[in-house]
Amino acid sequence: MTTSLELVSANKCFGGWLKRYRHPSAVLNCDMVFAVYLPPQADQGKPLPALYWLSGLTCTDENVMQKSGIQRLAAELGMVVVAPDTSPRGDKVPDDADGAYDFGLGAGFYVNATQQPWARHYRMYDYVVDELPALIEAHFPVSDQRSISGHSMGGHGALVCALKNPGRYQSVSAFAPISSPLHCPWGHKALGNYLGPDRQAWKDWDACELIARAEERLPLLVDQGEDDNFLVEQLKPELLEAAANQHNHPLTLRRQPGYDHSYYFIASFLPEHMQHHAAALGC
Amino acid sequence: MTTSLELVSANKCFGGWLKRYRHPSAVLNCDMVFAVYLPPQADQGKPLPALYWLSGLTCTDENVMQKSGIQRLAAELGMVVVAPDTSPRGDKVPDDADGAYDFGLGAGFYVNATQQPWARHYRMYDYVVDELPALIEAHFPVSDQRSISGHSMGGHGALVCALKNPGRYQSVSAFAPISSPLHCPWGHKALGNYLGPDRQAWKDWDACELIARAEERLPLLVDQGEDDNFLVEQLKPELLEAAANQHNHPLTLRRQPGYDHSYYFIASFLPEHMQHHAAALGC
Repeated sequence: MTTSLELVSANKCFGGWLKRYRHPSAVLNCDMVFAVYLPPQADQGKPLPALYWLSGLTCTDENVMQKSGIQRLAAELGMVVVAPDTSPRGDKVPDDADGAYDFGLGAGFYVNATQQPWARHYRMYDYVVDELPALIEAHFPVSDQRSISGHSMGGHGALVCALKNPGRYQSVSAFAPISSPLHCPWGHKALGNYLGPDRQAWKDWDACELIARAEERLPLLVDQGEDDNFLVEQLKPELLEAAANQHNHPLTLRRQPGYDHSYYFIASFLPEHMQHHAAALGC
Repeated sequence: MTTSLELVSANKCFGGWLKRYRHPSAVLNCDMVFAVYLPPQADQGKPLPALYWLSGLTCTDENVMQKSGIQRLAAELGMVVVAPDTSPRGDKVPDDADGAYDFGLGAGFYVNATQQPWARHYRMYDYVVDELPALIEAHFPVSDQRSISGHSMGGHGALVCALKNPGRYQSVSAFAPISSPLHCPWGHKALGNYLGPDRQAWKDWDACELIARAEERLPLLVDQGEDDNFLVEQLKPELLEAAANQHNHPLTLRRQPGYDHSYYFIASFLPEHMQHHAAALGC
């Protein structure tokens, strides 16, 4: 890898370092910023496993690092955490015509767009699954042991990335994921624009559809707050549950009474997700 | 207490509830918002001790709750956490003429102003020490066991509140406090405006001066990042150290290599501060 990384910021945290880098993305045709947390164990020479965290609508790489407490857990476990942005960025990158929060900038949905004007930049799936890990593994003391998690749109992204790539991730989990973009307004808008009106093409980006074709029985760990404002209209964990039941796919879906869609919910259950990933990664 | 509390928001977090309330403040002559984290133990009927957290310049009640991980620790220890805002607020409240970040709104410095136009609203000391605890203790299952901590301007505030009120706080700690507003530009600007040009009056609001007159030897726990941008010009922990040495006041001052002024630094060492407070509060 000869891609240049420009250090944007560095903060010492729980004995390790949270660093943000800017780099030109060949896949997305723009400059991107990502965050990587290197725990204290990264100084000891042994490559460490990495967890990729995919954030939700409107987020950047910063939300999980500022609000979830993930660095403390990663420092305890000896795990690197990588947080990409949620869409391509920059003046050249087209956005929702009305600047809406649920499409365009901050809302890449972790798919590869096929429709113009989106297809030139909106290829977050290839970025997250291939380009970014290659960059991370070339520049940091990171092994090829990877896990993936995320929240809301990023929970959908994590499930899709894992289900589409048997063997590539040792474990996967999600917080309040968009369980089936085929069956919710956020998904209809995003996939309709990025992929066009043919709903057959959408099925490649829907966790429930991908469970039906999964070659690997990678266990899914999902937490969902019962007081989440988006639960009924957008997230629909019952669809994930039905698909898992129908296709005998291992799913642990935990409905958490009183919890909402915020990072306060994520922070509360992240310790158990990190234990889940650590066990799979051999931390 | 008949003061009305208007619930602004509620988020379940680590089994407890983070709640934000708006209320009219008689001391500050404006409406104020504060945050209170009620750990799961708050449902068990026994009054719990409370930690008051004072934030730094530009902050509100939200920063510590979003970025420090304090709810996790409070839930483990059975401690209520109260976070006031950092100044009076509202259209009626005068601000720095240039809208600077280091004076006026978001920069109350936890003093009682004596000069106009500030004196009518800027009485954050009375608010934090008296009005807010009375409100908290009337409305929530909270005992009269209190501790206080804070960051930067709020570290100064925590030290001053504790040193001026022997017996009122069971413990005190600070992250990167403004050790001596008499000896730094932030302090000169704030105290010069709030208290007027007579520096003798400033001494009532300077931790180093208060150590010299302290009637109680309450141990001070202070963490300071060595890579803090404000260390040399504004924070000056060496002045606190000298005052403690000269007056035989117990001070644990820990200089942390590589750490900066951010909440990443606070999050990293907050667990030890919470243990310090829990021991004093009998948690």
